[in-house]
Amino acid sequence: MRTDLQAPIADVRALVAMALAEDLTPLGDLTSSLLDPQLMATAEFNARQPGVLAGCACVQETFAAVDPALRIQWNKNDGDRIVAGEVLGVATGPFATLLTAERTALNFLSALSGIATNAAQWVDLAAGRVIVWDTRKTTPGYRSLQKAAVRAGGAANHRGNLSDWLMLKDNHLVGMSISEAVKKARRVWPGRTVHVEVDREEQMFQAMEAGADIILLDNFSPADLKPLVAKVHQWAIDNSARRPLLEASGGISLSTLDAYADTGVDLVSSGSLTNSAGVLDIGLDVRPNS
Amino acid sequence: MRTDLQAPIADVRALVAMALAEDLTPLGDLTSSLLDPQLMATAEFNARQPGVLAGCACVQETFAAVDPALRIQWNKNDGDRIVAGEVLGVATGPFATLLTAERTALNFLSALSGIATNAAQWVDLAAGRVIVWDTRKTTPGYRSLQKAAVRAGGAANHRGNLSDWLMLKDNHLVGMSISEAVKKARRVWPGRTVHVEVDREEQMFQAMEAGADIILLDNFSPADLKPLVAKVHQWAIDNSARRPLLEASGGISLSTLDAYADTGVDLVSSGSLTNSAGVLDIGLDVRPNS
Amino acid sequence: MRTDLQAPIADVRALVAMALAEDLTPLGDLTSSLLDPQLMATAEFNARQPGVLAGCACVQETFAAVDPALRIQWNKNDGDRIVAGEVLGVATGPFATLLTAERTALNFLSALSGIATNAAQWVDLAAGRVIVWDTRKTTPGYRSLQKAAVRAGGAANHRGNLSDWLMLKDNHLVGMSISEAVKKARRVWPGRTVHVEVDREEQMFQAMEAGADIILLDNFSPADLKPLVAKVHQWAIDNSARRPLLEASGGISLSTLDAYADTGVDLVSSGSLTNSAGVLDIGLDVRPNS
Amino acid sequence: MRTDLQAPIADVRALVAMALAEDLTPLGDLTSSLLDPQLMATAEFNARQPGVLAGCACVQETFAAVDPALRIQWNKNDGDRIVAGEVLGVATGPFATLLTAERTALNFLSALSGIATNAAQWVDLAAGRVIVWDTRKTTPGYRSLQKAAVRAGGAANHRGNLSDWLMLKDNHLVGMSISEAVKKARRVWPGRTVHVEVDREEQMFQAMEAGADIILLDNFSPADLKPLVAKVHQWAIDNSARRPLLEASGGISLSTLDAYADTGVDLVSSGSLTNSAGVLDIGLDVRPNS
Amino acid sequence: MRTDLQAPIADVRALVAMALAEDLTPLGDLTSSLLDPQLMATAEFNARQPGVLAGCACVQETFAAVDPALRIQWNKNDGDRIVAGEVLGVATGPFATLLTAERTALNFLSALSGIATNAAQWVDLAAGRVIVWDTRKTTPGYRSLQKAAVRAGGAANHRGNLSDWLMLKDNHLVGMSISEAVKKARRVWPGRTVHVEVDREEQMFQAMEAGADIILLDNFSPADLKPLVAKVHQWAIDNSARRPLLEASGGISLSTLDAYADTGVDLVSSGSLTNSAGVLDIGLDVRPNS
Amino acid sequence: MRTDLQAPIADVRALVAMALAEDLTPLGDLTSSLLDPQLMATAEFNARQPGVLAGCACVQETFAAVDPALRIQWNKNDGDRIVAGEVLGVATGPFATLLTAERTALNFLSALSGIATNAAQWVDLAAGRVIVWDTRKTTPGYRSLQKAAVRAGGAANHRGNLSDWLMLKDNHLVGMSISEAVKKARRVWPGRTVHVEVDREEQMFQAMEAGADIILLDNFSPADLKPLVAKVHQWAIDNSARRPLLEASGGISLSTLDAYADTGVDLVSSGSLTNSAGVLDIGLDVRPNS
Repeated sequence: MRTDLQAPIADVRALVAMALAEDLTPLGDLTSSLLDPQLMATAEFNARQPGVLAGCACVQETFAAVDPALRIQWNKNDGDRIVAGEVLGVATGPFATLLTAERTALNFLSALSGIATNAAQWVDLAAGRVIVWDTRKTTPGYRSLQKAAVRAGGAANHRGNLSDWLMLKDNHLVGMSISEAVKKARRVWPGRTVHVEVDREEQMFQAMEAGADIILLDNFSPADLKPLVAKVHQWAIDNSARRPLLEASGGISLSTLDAYADTGVDLVSSGSLTNSAGVLDIGLDVRPNS
Repeated sequence: MRTDLQAPIADVRALVAMALAEDLTPLGDLTSSLLDPQLMATAEFNARQPGVLAGCACVQETFAAVDPALRIQWNKNDGDRIVAGEVLGVATGPFATLLTAERTALNFLSALSGIATNAAQWVDLAAGRVIVWDTRKTTPGYRSLQKAAVRAGGAANHRGNLSDWLMLKDNHLVGMSISEAVKKARRVWPGRTVHVEVDREEQMFQAMEAGADIILLDNFSPADLKPLVAKVHQWAIDNSARRPLLEASGGISLSTLDAYADTGVDLVSSGSLTNSAGVLDIGLDVRPNS
Repeated sequence: MRTDLQAPIADVRALVAMALAEDLTPLGDLTSSLLDPQLMATAEFNARQPGVLAGCACVQETFAAVDPALRIQWNKNDGDRIVAGEVLGVATGPFATLLTAERTALNFLSALSGIATNAAQWVDLAAGRVIVWDTRKTTPGYRSLQKAAVRAGGAANHRGNLSDWLMLKDNHLVGMSISEAVKKARRVWPGRTVHVEVDREEQMFQAMEAGADIILLDNFSPADLKPLVAKVHQWAIDNSARRPLLEASGGISLSTLDAYADTGVDLVSSGSLTNSAGVLDIGLDVRPNS
Repeated sequence: MRTDLQAPIADVRALVAMALAEDLTPLGDLTSSLLDPQLMATAEFNARQPGVLAGCACVQETFAAVDPALRIQWNKNDGDRIVAGEVLGVATGPFATLLTAERTALNFLSALSGIATNAAQWVDLAAGRVIVWDTRKTTPGYRSLQKAAVRAGGAANHRGNLSDWLMLKDNHLVGMSISEAVKKARRVWPGRTVHVEVDREEQMFQAMEAGADIILLDNFSPADLKPLVAKVHQWAIDNSARRPLLEASGGISLSTLDAYADTGVDLVSSGSLTNSAGVLDIGLDVRPNS
Repeated sequence: MRTDLQAPIADVRALVAMALAEDLTPLGDLTSSLLDPQLMATAEFNARQPGVLAGCACVQETFAAVDPALRIQWNKNDGDRIVAGEVLGVATGPFATLLTAERTALNFLSALSGIATNAAQWVDLAAGRVIVWDTRKTTPGYRSLQKAAVRAGGAANHRGNLSDWLMLKDNHLVGMSISEAVKKARRVWPGRTVHVEVDREEQMFQAMEAGADIILLDNFSPADLKPLVAKVHQWAIDNSARRPLLEASGGISLSTLDAYADTGVDLVSSGSLTNSAGVLDIGLDVRPNS
Repeated sequence: MRTDLQAPIADVRALVAMALAEDLTPLGDLTSSLLDPQLMATAEFNARQPGVLAGCACVQETFAAVDPALRIQWNKNDGDRIVAGEVLGVATGPFATLLTAERTALNFLSALSGIATNAAQWVDLAAGRVIVWDTRKTTPGYRSLQKAAVRAGGAANHRGNLSDWLMLKDNHLVGMSISEAVKKARRVWPGRTVHVEVDREEQMFQAMEAGADIILLDNFSPADLKPLVAKVHQWAIDNSARRPLLEASGGISLSTLDAYADTGVDLVSSGSLTNSAGVLDIGLDVRPNS
C-alpha cells in the first residue's frame, strides 16, 4: 500500500461510522437477520469497467466496523490500473455480515475509484505536457479522501484548504492593488505560497512584478494563453527573476485539455476532476460456502 | 420551506461541521484575514444553468457556522424550478467571512441541486406513467441529504436503509425457497414491507404467491417486461389477490426510461439518480458594500 | 451469538463510551487505584433471578474499553433462558480494572435482560395466539439496544422509528379523510407500510377500504374487539381483499393480555415492554487470584 | 427553574441529539411530511397521574433541536408536585414538527418524572427520619439526568461516580486490613470522603477506628441495625471522636423503608430509586390551530 | 505500568484524535509522502534533561492511531525518575509514519513529563513535611491527563472538578454565614467533603466550629500560619473534635515552599504545578534501517 | 474584534465543551447549587499583570455554554495591550452560573494571553529586525488557538501542520540528495513551499541551488550566521536568483534573541513561544447584585 495515496485514517473512520449509522439505524439489517449466523461466505470484488482503483482503506474499515470477523485479501491497491473482469480482492467471513457491509463498501469504492479513473484520463491525455490539478470543489467532508483519489489517478493536489496558502482573487482586492495585497500576504504569512488569480494581461504583469508564486490565468482560451506564457518567460529573462508557475483554469474539460496542454502553462485545474467524475462500476460477487 | 423536502437538521449540521473543519484547519482562511473585518458585502446566489434547487438548509447552516452575522434571504427554495440567470437568494454580512463560507456553501448547493435536477429530468420524462425511485447508492454519510434532494426533484425514495424493510435478493435465498423466506420475514418482522428481487418469470410467480409487497424485476428488457406485467395483473384477478408493486431496475438510464415507462411497471429505480447526477452550476457573486 | 438479536455495534460503543466517561471523569476509579496493578482476578456473572439474557455485547465492550487485558468467556448468550444461580460467563484479567468495569457492565446487563425477561413473560402468556409487539416508548438513545432485547425475549419489533413507515393517528387527519391520507401516503412514499390508528368502528372500515396495511385498534376492550375482528375477516371475504393486520393497543398489561390474545387480533403492543420492564438481578462475584 | 435540580446542559444536549438521530434516520418523520407545513398548533403536556416533575430541560432541548420555531411555556418545573389532570406546560409552533418531537419529548419527561416521583415516595415515607440516597445503578449515559431527577424528588445523591470518593468494599481489601486501606486512601487521596462497606459488627468497629467518614452496613435487618447504631454512638462518646455517617443498604424497598427509618441510621440507599422507578404517565394533547 | 498514575484511556484517545486531525488535515504529511513506504526505522526516545516521566499512554495511542504497524518498547514508565541521556523507549515500524507521529507524540510527552517533573521538585523540597496539592488551574480539556501527571510526580490531586466536593469561598457566602452554608452543604450533599476558604482567623474558627473537613488558609504568610495551626490543634483538643485538614494556598512557589512546609499545615496547593510547569526536553532519534 | 486573530470557532466550541464536561461531570457544580438561583451578579475581568490579551472568544463561548443568560461586555479584545489593574470586560448574569463558569473561562484566558504576552516580548525585542515565528510545538488539540494567540502577540505563524508545506529535515534525506528531494517535492506537490533544514554550510548551498523557498539554519550561533547570510545574498546576486528566506532556529531564547536579530536572517523560530509561555495573571472579581 502506498501511504502517499492514502487519506488520514481518522477521516476514513469518521465517514465509515457515519455511513454505517445511516444504513443500520435503528434495527440493523433486517434481511440478513433471517440468515443462519454460522454460514460463512467468500466474496470477490470485481471490476466491471477498466479504471484506476481508490478507496481500499474505506472498504477495509467498513468491513472491520460491521464485523471484526470479516477479512479481505487485496490483489490490487489504490493507484493500480485495473481491467474489466479483474478480481480486485477477496473477502471472507460470515455470510450475513458480509451482505450487511456490501453496499456501503461499494459506495465508497466505486465513487473514489471513479475519481481516480477520471483523473487518470486527464493525466493520460496531458501526457506529461502539463500537470493536472484538482480544486476545492469536493464533496463537503470528503476533501481528504477525494484528493487522495486524485493522487491515485496520477494528478496533483491544488491547495488543500483555506489554511494552506493565500489565493488572491478579484474579490480580495478591495481597496488594495495586487502589489499591496501580495506584500501584505508576505508580511502577515511569511513563507507561504502566494497565488494570484488574473483575468487580464495587465493583472498578470502586476502579479508577476509583485512576486506571486503562482498565477492563475482565468478563463483564457488556449490561443490567448500561448502568447501570455511567452511574455512571462521573456519577463523572467529580462528581469533575471524566478518565473511564477502558470495555471490555466475556467471551463477546461477533457475535450479541450489537449489544446491547453500545448500552451506551455505549468498546470491546468478543473473542478470536474472531483465534482463530476462519475462512479467506476465495481461489484461484489458473494458465494456462501457450501 | 417545505419540511417534507428536508433532511433531518442534525445531519445537515454534522456535515457542515465536517466541511468547515476540513477547509479551515488549522489556521482559518489566510486570504480573508488580509481584509478589513469591518467591511460589509452583499452576495447573490446565481443559477448559471436551469434546474431544480436543493440544499438551501446546508447553505444556511454553513453561513451560520462560519459567522452568525451572515444573513440570507431566499427567493427560491428546495424543490423550486430555477432558470439560468435567476437570483436564488441574497446573502449579506461581513465581506471576509462571506468569502470564507463561499466554497463550502456552493459545494453543498451545486451537488444537491445537481441531484434534484437530474431526478426532475427523470420525472419529466416519465410523465406520470411510472414512479421514479432512487436506491441506496448514495455517497456514504449523505443518505438523508441526497434522498431529500431526490424528493425535491419530484422522485420518490426507495428503502431508506437496511433497517426499513426486507429485500430478499438471490443471495439471501440460501437454503430457503422464496416462499419460506417471505414467510420467515413476515413472522420475524411483522408489518414490514417484504420486497423480493427476481430475474426469472418463475421466481416472479413464487414471490407473488408468497405474498411479496413489491417485486423487483431485475435486468429485464422493456419488451420482456410488458407480458410479465400483464401476467401479474391476470394473476391478481384470477386469485382475487392484491397485486404486488412492480419495480424495474438494472441499467435503466434517461435514454431507455421512456420505453420502461410504457411497460406498465409501477416503479423504475436507478442508482444513477444519486451516484451519477453531476452538479448544477451555481455561483456566488460577491460585492463589497461601498 | 445470534446476530439477529444484536443492536448495531456502533450504538453499543457509543453508549459504553458515554457510560465510562460519566463514571470515571475526571480522575478515574480512586478506590481501585489503591490496589496492586499486578493482581489478577476471576469473576463470575451470576443470575440471581430466572429470566432471559440480553446485553452481552455491552458487557464485552465495557470490559474492552476499560482494559484490553480483560477477557470474558460466556456460557450463555443473548436470548438464552437462564435460571437463578447459573453462571452466565466468567471474566478474567487485572483485579483493579475488573472492579472498575463492574458496575457499568452490570447496569447494561441487568437493564437489557430485564427487558428481555419481561418480553418473554408476555410471549409465554400469549402462547402463540398473538404476536407481542413493542413501541417507540424507549429510553432515548437506547432504541436499538432495547428493541434488540425485546427480540431476545421472543417478542417482535414494531416500527423502529419515524422514518420506517407511516402511522396515521387522529392528529394527522387534519383536513384529510383517512382515505385521502392513505392515498397521499402511497403516492409520496410508495412501497412503505401504511398503518392507521382508529378508535371507532367506522374509522376501521374507512382504513380497511383505503387499503391500510395495519390497523391499530386503540383502547378497545377484549369484548369489543372480538366482533370487530370478525367483521374484518368477513369484509375481506366479501371484497376478495387482503385483510389488514390488526393491532390492539392501549393500556394492555400482563394481567389483561390473556383476554386480548383470545380476540383474534394479530398483534398486541404495549409501551410497558420497554419502559416499565424493571431489571433482572445479576451479580458479579469477583475473586482475586491467590 | 431551580438550577440545583438540573443536570449539566451538555449531557442533555448529547442525549437529545442521540434520541433524534435514532428516531429520524434516515428520512425523517414520514407521516408528518404529509401535513401542511404552514399549519400551526398548540399542545398541552398533561399529567395523567400525580407525581413529581423532572426532565423539562430535555423537552425544551428536544423541541429546539427538532424545530427552532417551537416554543414552550411551563406552568410547572422540575421538582414541583403535580396532580392528575394538571396542564404542565403549553407548546406552540408548526403542527408537523410538534408531532415529530412528541414521542422523544415524552420519553424523556415520563422516565425522569417517574424517577422523581418514586424518590418522592421514599422521601415522604422517610418523613425526615432518614436521608434517602440513590446509587450508581443508573442507566449508562444517564447518570447526571437520573441523579438530578432523584434530587427533584427530594432525595439525595450518593457518590456521583468512581472519581468522587473512595468506597472500600470487601473486594478491595485483598491483602490489606480496613485500617491499612483507609490509611492508604487518606495518604493518596487527601481530603476525600472515605466510605467503608461492612457486613459484620467487627468490621464496623475496624472502619470506625480507622476513621472512615461513612460506613455502609450491608444487608442488616432493621432489628440488627438498631443496636449497632447505639454502639456507634457510644463509641463516639467514649472516644470523643466524630461519629461516621451510617448508611443502610441491601434490598431495602418501599415496603421495608419504614422499619429502616426507625433504626437511627443516617442514610438508606437503594438501586431501585433509579433502576426500577417506572414511568410517570404524561401525555401531549395536540390541537391544530383552526 | 501503574494504573493509579493513568488518566482514563478515553480522554487520551479523544485528545490524540484531535491532535492528529489538527496536524494532518486535509492532505496528511506531505513530506513523509516522498519517502519509500517500505523503509523501516528504529527510533529512541531520549531524555535530554533529568526529570520524571509522564504521558507514555499518549505516545502509545498516537503511534497506534497514525499506523497500527508502529510498536514501542518502554524502558521507563510514568512516574519513573529519568536522567539526561537515558533511552526511555524504542519505537520501530515504517519510517514514513514514524516521522508523521513524532511531533504529536513529543508534544504530549514533553508537556506531561514537564508537569510530573515540576511536581516532583515540589515534593522533593517538601520532604514529607507537607502534602503538595494541585488545583483546577489546568489546560481546559486536559484535567485528567495533567492531574495524572501530578500524581506521577508524587504530588496529590485536590478536588477533581466542581462535582467532587463543596468548596465555599467568600463569594458563596452571600446572605449565609459559614455555619449556615456548611449546614446546608451537609444536608443537600451528605457524605461529601466540605471545604471552606478563609482569609481571617475568625473565619477559620467559624469554619472549624461548623465542622468543615478542610480549611484553606488563603494568602497567609508562613509566619502568620504557624500560630494559626497551633490554635487549630488546641481547639481540637479543647473540643475533643476531629481537627480539619489545613491547606495553605495563595502565591506559594518553589522558593517559598520550604517556609510553608515548616508551618504545620497539612497541604500546600499551587496552580503553578499545572499551569506553569514548562516542558521536559525529550527527543526522538530516528534511524532508518539499512 | 479582529477576525485575523481568531481561531476557527468550531475549535473553540469543541474545547469549551470538553472543558465543561471535565469540570461538571456528573453532578454539576455542587457548591453553586447552594446559592439562590435568582440572585444576579456583576463580574469584572481584571488584569493583574501587564500583557497582551488573547482568548476572549473562549470566554464568550464558555459563558454561553454554561448559561445563555450570561452576558459579557468587553473593553479590550484579542491583540490589545493591557496594563495591570485594567478592567478587560464586565460579565453579568445569574450569580450561581457565573461562578460555575469562572475557572474554565480564566483557564483559557490566562493561558492564551500568556502566549500572546510572551510572543509580544519577542516581537518588541526583535524591533522589526527579524520576524518572530512559532513552531508546531503546541499543546495537542490547541494548535489553532495557540497559533491565533501568537498572532495576537504580533508574531507570525510557521507551518500550521504537516499538510501545509514540505519541510525536509536530515531524517527525510535517506537515499536522496537535497537536490533530488526538492525536485521530487516540486513534482508531487506543485505550488507548495519547500523548506529545507540544514546544519552545515554545504547543505545550505545545496538547498539554495535546489531552489528551496526557505532554509532553516539549525543550531548556528549568531556569529556563524552572519557570514552565511552574506554568502546567501551574494549567491543570489551572482546567480540572478530569488534568495530563499532564511530562518534561524535551535535553542534561541529571549536572552539570545537580540544577537540573532542582528544576523540578517529573515525569521527566528522557537518552540518556547507556545510551549513555555506561562500564564498571564487575570482574575474575575464577582459581586452579587444587592
